[in-house]
Amino acid sequence: ILKKADVVLYDALVSDEIMALVPQDAEKIAVGKRAGKHSAAQDEINQLLVTKAFTRKNVVRLKGGDPFVFGRGSEEAQFMLANNIACHIVPGITAASACTSYVGIPLTHREVARSASLITGHVKESGHLDLPWHTLNDHQQTIVFYMGVKSLPIISEQLITAGRRSNTPAALIYKGTTPEQKVYRGCLSSLVSIVEQHNVKPPTLIVIGDVVNTFDEKQLANVGYLSP
Amino acid sequence: ILKKADVVLYDALVSDEIMALVPQDAEKIAVGKRAGKHSAAQDEINQLLVTKAFTRKNVVRLKGGDPFVFGRGSEEAQFMLANNIACHIVPGITAASACTSYVGIPLTHREVARSASLITGHVKESGHLDLPWHTLNDHQQTIVFYMGVKSLPIISEQLITAGRRSNTPAALIYKGTTPEQKVYRGCLSSLVSIVEQHNVKPPTLIVIGDVVNTFDEKQLANVGYLSP
Repeated sequence: ILKKADVVLYDALVSDEIMALVPQDAEKIAVGKRAGKHSAAQDEINQLLVTKAFTRKNVVRLKGGDPFVFGRGSEEAQFMLANNIACHIVPGITAASACTSYVGIPLTHREVARSASLITGHVKESGHLDLPWHTLNDHQQTIVFYMGVKSLPIISEQLITAGRRSNTPAALIYKGTTPEQKVYRGCLSSLVSIVEQHNVKPPTLIVIGDVVNTFDEKQLANVGYLSP
Repeated sequence: ILKKADVVLYDALVSDEIMALVPQDAEKIAVGKRAGKHSAAQDEINQLLVTKAFTRKNVVRLKGGDPFVFGRGSEEAQFMLANNIACHIVPGITAASACTSYVGIPLTHREVARSASLITGHVKESGHLDLPWHTLNDHQQTIVFYMGVKSLPIISEQLITAGRRSNTPAALIYKGTTPEQKVYRGCLSSLVSIVEQHNVKPPTLIVIGDVVNTFDEKQLANVGYLSP
């Protein structure tokens, strides 16, 4: 699909290796939103997608991870379809899977985690993080927060209040699967101090649950990854 | 990795197209477990992986979906690591992502689904499905059941008892992403009769939540997929 692209609108998290697959003569437009940018950006992307689709043949909207998991992909598809532009949806490996695999954490493990909940910790403009905490209090459940670094103090406090043990194993994965990947392991009650101590910034995935300790340090030394 | 394989132990859900990437002279061993096979199979697979790793160079354990999401990948890795065999973990697109994308259902959608829970509906030998139903009762939550067709009567009843609306949109995706893919749309209270009426068998993924109706029929006609 990339090789047939006439126009590619790509995100900040798309790697150079992937961009190298795009034909040289294709138009490449960076539309990456990072925290802090103004909120009209999504409307602009939607409009740009439609405009390009009307004037050029094959438009690719290229994202890191999976477009349908906290990726706004379905919103963009709705906008395209409302404008009678046919779409192909291509699934990807979402951060909850990719980043955890790269640091040796399974999302599920028999007798340890029977479910995995993917949830966003992104705080809306109201500054309020209104989440269904009671749905996150099962000990045999892995919780993965996307975009949660800034709200970690609330997340830790609310999960413990909801009934999760304060010593539940937890990990922070900064820029997972990239050469800059860093992983910090601790527990639910130590995450906030880890962020302060190491000045952990977004993009960072938060994983909470006993699965974090599936492999010990000695074992992890024997686990390799494709890259980095 | 496949091209360098000396031995490949592969699952029932791995396609012929993927198997075609394995070198002709590599040893290919089908170890697919389908429902009903005896429970010792996993031990045999573990042992086979170790035996082959000790005698041959590169052993690939090839699964459909993601090995770390209801895939027993972490159990197999633990067994390998306990035997001092180094592993590489390669993430994949788990069924919850792949199958839903192929039928136009996003796992999350702003203002509609703020979280997605992946959970197994597999009934243990006790015949009991003991799940934390109270963690599945948020209306802005997508629920994806792996291996849940047989327990659908319990799932539907318990979710409605837990507080999910009986008319919550839901879908059954049979053999998602394959040429035999079939999707059945309905609601939480109609899933059981859909299974009976169409004789829906495993492997079938169950998706429950308002995201199922993100796109209407006319829009879905304009959504294409890589294959089938």
